[in-house]
Amino acid sequence: MPADPAAVLPADARAAFRAGLVTPTSGWSRGYAQVNVLSIPREQAFDLLLFAQRNPKPCPVLGVLEPGETSGPLLAGGDIRTDVPKYTVYHDGVLVDEPADVSAHWRDDLVTFLFGCSFTFEAALQDGGVRIAHLDQGVNVPMYRTNRQAAPAGAMAGPLVVSMRPVPAAQVADAVRITSRYPAVHGAPVHVGDPEELGVDLRSPDFGDAVRIPEGHLPVFWACGVTPQAAVMQSRPPLAIGHAPGHMLITDARDSDYLVP
Amino acid sequence: MPADPAAVLPADARAAFRAGLVTPTSGWSRGYAQVNVLSIPREQAFDLLLFAQRNPKPCPVLGVLEPGETSGPLLAGGDIRTDVPKYTVYHDGVLVDEPADVSAHWRDDLVTFLFGCSFTFEAALQDGGVRIAHLDQGVNVPMYRTNRQAAPAGAMAGPLVVSMRPVPAAQVADAVRITSRYPAVHGAPVHVGDPEELGVDLRSPDFGDAVRIPEGHLPVFWACGVTPQAAVMQSRPPLAIGHAPGHMLITDARDSDYLVP
Repeated sequence: MPADPAAVLPADARAAFRAGLVTPTSGWSRGYAQVNVLSIPREQAFDLLLFAQRNPKPCPVLGVLEPGETSGPLLAGGDIRTDVPKYTVYHDGVLVDEPADVSAHWRDDLVTFLFGCSFTFEAALQDGGVRIAHLDQGVNVPMYRTNRQAAPAGAMAGPLVVSMRPVPAAQVADAVRITSRYPAVHGAPVHVGDPEELGVDLRSPDFGDAVRIPEGHLPVFWACGVTPQAAVMQSRPPLAIGHAPGHMLITDARDSDYLVP
Repeated sequence: MPADPAAVLPADARAAFRAGLVTPTSGWSRGYAQVNVLSIPREQAFDLLLFAQRNPKPCPVLGVLEPGETSGPLLAGGDIRTDVPKYTVYHDGVLVDEPADVSAHWRDDLVTFLFGCSFTFEAALQDGGVRIAHLDQGVNVPMYRTNRQAAPAGAMAGPLVVSMRPVPAAQVADAVRITSRYPAVHGAPVHVGDPEELGVDLRSPDFGDAVRIPEGHLPVFWACGVTPQAAVMQSRPPLAIGHAPGHMLITDARDSDYLVP
């Protein structure tokens, strides 16, 4: 384990994971974009790409590796089968393995989607003076299935999944302004302040951990990258490979590459 | 032919074309978005959708009709096989027919892409006081294959195709500002002022007509929706159906729906 993971360059981080290091990637390679990984057979890939096109806030596509490709410009010199610290492997939508290397599961018809991750905008929020409650409380961000359906595409359908971060009332506008400048990583919030309208019970996240909402804070909801994963699993493809929660692919793209004016 | 095509609502325009009227759609249904139409078999559709994702300026996807779908929210109550005034039909990349109705050519595995069209931003330019030279000169917009390759995807590859409009030097900034607010219809220009760098001879357009560049005007180049069509034809799919040049699908979406702040 490096002394200062934040200072490790992406290619070196990927090499460490390839060599066998298994660790969550939060805090690694500061300034570089980490992404959600989802590999599915080409037969299902058109539906997922169309689902992403129709739901850009929860499914921001930062890159696609075509069938047979195991590397690409976002992971120069890397290998998508080994460079994520920990994977999840699903058969027919059921989790069957959580290996540190998926070479044994790989098929040449797999298409790999790289979706933007909220780590990028959380760094921007912190730089803008907005504290991140789940980091302060030392837990995972809470995520909820909402009562809203994402726009379906072919076999892909499912609820909009959101992440929630409590924000002080006086900083809600800042949080909206800052994240709206990162449309490639979920962008502006989809909802502010009323969990009931989304069909969400804040005490019972569907993924991650509940966080305490400090006095004077509002719950703010962003579209979440679990949305495409939930839709894919619901469609029960014969094989799907993802990253294990919190164990992301660290790319060579800088967070600032995704900042718009 | 209606007395005032600009005042015809989109559903009525589509009904007129369905009933047999064949006419270019420039000037029809003012304020409503017209789109490029391209239908290809599902087998080729993933590559085209990925090509569009990688080349959003020339290939802005405003809608996709899934295999078997012949209507959708952009053409409520309509039928994509009959509602375009004139079509082009290609077998293995070769033009074989230009009918007013493609029902006889239709296959249930066709996926239809609706790409944004520059008519939308030309209206905005005119509203912003920028004259459109090819309209003043009564010709088609000139389009050029450039020496730049679009980002390839699977079987889809080809040059970036651009359209050119001369703009007075004092209005170039206005033209950039106005069109950059319409990212869904090609957005800001890709190049200003130097055709040679793009490998373009202004006198010899690859599509459309040459326009005279008035004194004090600069040639301004925008990414063009012919780019995906050129890439698809180069890949020689067994069947492809498009609109005939200038004979677009008129949708129920308003131009203003695609305006960003």
